[in-house]
Amino acid sequence: MTNDSSVNGCCEHSERKVNFGPGPAQLPLEVLKNVQAEFLSYNGSGSNVMELSHRSSAFAKIIQEAEQDIRELLSVPESYAVLFLQGGATAQFSAVPLNFLNLKSSQTADYLVTGYWSEKAAKEAEKFGKINWVVPKSDKYRDVPSESTWKLTENSSYFYYCSNETIHGIELEDIPSIVPKDTPIICDMSSNFLTRSFDITKFAMVFASAQKNFGASGLVLVIVRKDLVEKSTNKSIPVTFDYKVQIANASMYNTPPTFSVYIANKMFNWTKRQGGLKSMNQLSDKKSKVVYETIDQSNGFYMNVIENKYRSRVNIPLRIMKDGTANEKLESLFLSEAIKANMIELKGHRAVGGIRISLYNGVSLQETTKLVDFMRIFQKNNS
Amino acid sequence: MTNDSSVNGCCEHSERKVNFGPGPAQLPLEVLKNVQAEFLSYNGSGSNVMELSHRSSAFAKIIQEAEQDIRELLSVPESYAVLFLQGGATAQFSAVPLNFLNLKSSQTADYLVTGYWSEKAAKEAEKFGKINWVVPKSDKYRDVPSESTWKLTENSSYFYYCSNETIHGIELEDIPSIVPKDTPIICDMSSNFLTRSFDITKFAMVFASAQKNFGASGLVLVIVRKDLVEKSTNKSIPVTFDYKVQIANASMYNTPPTFSVYIANKMFNWTKRQGGLKSMNQLSDKKSKVVYETIDQSNGFYMNVIENKYRSRVNIPLRIMKDGTANEKLESLFLSEAIKANMIELKGHRAVGGIRISLYNGVSLQETTKLVDFMRIFQKNNS
Repeated sequence: MTNDSSVNGCCEHSERKVNFGPGPAQLPLEVLKNVQAEFLSYNGSGSNVMELSHRSSAFAKIIQEAEQDIRELLSVPESYAVLFLQGGATAQFSAVPLNFLNLKSSQTADYLVTGYWSEKAAKEAEKFGKINWVVPKSDKYRDVPSESTWKLTENSSYFYYCSNETIHGIELEDIPSIVPKDTPIICDMSSNFLTRSFDITKFAMVFASAQKNFGASGLVLVIVRKDLVEKSTNKSIPVTFDYKVQIANASMYNTPPTFSVYIANKMFNWTKRQGGLKSMNQLSDKKSKVVYETIDQSNGFYMNVIENKYRSRVNIPLRIMKDGTANEKLESLFLSEAIKANMIELKGHRAVGGIRISLYNGVSLQETTKLVDFMRIFQKNNS
Repeated sequence: MTNDSSVNGCCEHSERKVNFGPGPAQLPLEVLKNVQAEFLSYNGSGSNVMELSHRSSAFAKIIQEAEQDIRELLSVPESYAVLFLQGGATAQFSAVPLNFLNLKSSQTADYLVTGYWSEKAAKEAEKFGKINWVVPKSDKYRDVPSESTWKLTENSSYFYYCSNETIHGIELEDIPSIVPKDTPIICDMSSNFLTRSFDITKFAMVFASAQKNFGASGLVLVIVRKDLVEKSTNKSIPVTFDYKVQIANASMYNTPPTFSVYIANKMFNWTKRQGGLKSMNQLSDKKSKVVYETIDQSNGFYMNVIENKYRSRVNIPLRIMKDGTANEKLESLFLSEAIKANMIELKGHRAVGGIRISLYNGVSLQETTKLVDFMRIFQKNNS
């Protein structure tokens, strides 16, 4: 075996890079080593999990454990289904309106667009029916207009929002309070899922793609109220998008992405071993705090433009300033020196440019500290 | 490391089981060991492939290599797109009609239903428009009605069939010849893909899920004529199902199932190293021949009811007979003794019962010989 000489833990590993990317994200080394150790024979089965029948008792145990862990981590009641689906969060941008646009007499859904991903979801939903943009389209997303300005539809089929905008670095900690109690709230939690606890019973549905806080791409987790799914009357939903069918078949109408479900199971286990969402929330607080402190104490060398209240704890976009403007030369120098220091995937999204620091659960405080130390030294050497 | 003591190869491995299941299927041990060896740092990247950004140069190389290998293995011209999508073959049951039902004036597609999977595809397509069943629905599938009896639609948008029915064990070696030249032919090749060569230019589109002959579930390969995709006029296709969008984004409109693409790349490489489709075709011939010989020389102890011409080389359902009827007691004894001999997943699908022997590319001739030896001894001891 190569690369297997280091102690269990994180940063001592000889070859491993620290990945601050927006996802697919880095996994805890102990999880990777555990999967590697049982790669030729999972739990004495004589097969890799990839090779197990999705109908086998061994895989049934994996997906059932994964569901139980999620129910435990988030206190999900039996009135909600937990689904392991394919197509990423983007597939849910279509599945949500296909299943739920006809829920209420308005045949209209309200979308709160706060950045790139909620905008994509709203535009996709418009293919399938009437969508109301709760706030006017923005050309640059830096905050969330106050609820008093929101225009909601009467008798809306559902209210949709994204709790964390991965590209713009905007996070909504609080569930919108202006939404009428009887309007189902649907939330894309892809990038901040499992970084904090929340009251699932306030939502009709939440979904999250796996490759940020619980593993490998190709899997999206859907937690949805069963009674709402029952109410859906659309008969032309592509079967893999039909929550009724997926619930009736326990996510196994067709072969699920078994290996990604297996990794998710390992990650849910790891999350529990870390102390669950209480610990993850504290960790996310600490990590983001040291980064924002470094930005705010840089005398404008590092700049994050998001209004404090909406600053994301998981995706932190920043620009490196010189003479009052963002300096791309310094930014590319920052990126190349970071790579030399084994810290990768720090380039900002083309939509906003600059640097982006993503702090998913698989990134440790120790690794984050290493990055802010690097940031301070970089500022000293370049201002 | 556990389980890593054996020589590279297949059957000597201490703990490994031989998996004759219908999929997810077993992978060559050398492929698994190669992935295991680079699990903590792929190709010096310092990350597992799961952790790599799908936009990274390292992953770009993986998905581009996978496409090149498929183009090479099947001589796919540039006029066809090669797509790596999510949702399994079942998602294509929806995507095909959504993209192509409106291709021709008839707004109707012809479906040749020869078993469980083509029947599922036809029923799914009926959600989205007019489907013509080329042959009457059968209650038990044992052969394919002769082309002279087929009822085709004039100016059909496309002709759809499944080249190998995994559950019923029916394989169509020849491309239907009665279909008019200007009718696009679309084929679900999930279970016999890469087991034989075929002329891709005879097809408008073929698709295959990965978990049978090229790796892990969560990935479906689509090879489709670009000019037909251009002709599609449906504006309400869920974006992940929209071939136009997937082609324009080289399968990366959203995060693809990166680990499954990586395994597919390894499997395409392995297939080439074995000698490509010529060798795979010979291997498939040899493996299925020894199994069918064992059945046909069993004096009716083992019975496969499929007409010889349509017997599948990859999925072989059989019943164990006693006094002229299938004997479930003997069948469960067969299954339990097979498991004792480290041969798993031989249970037939509930729709047909009995035993099913699946011989995907990852199953060696040596392993197949071990199974037929077991079959002969089982017959001797139980007839």
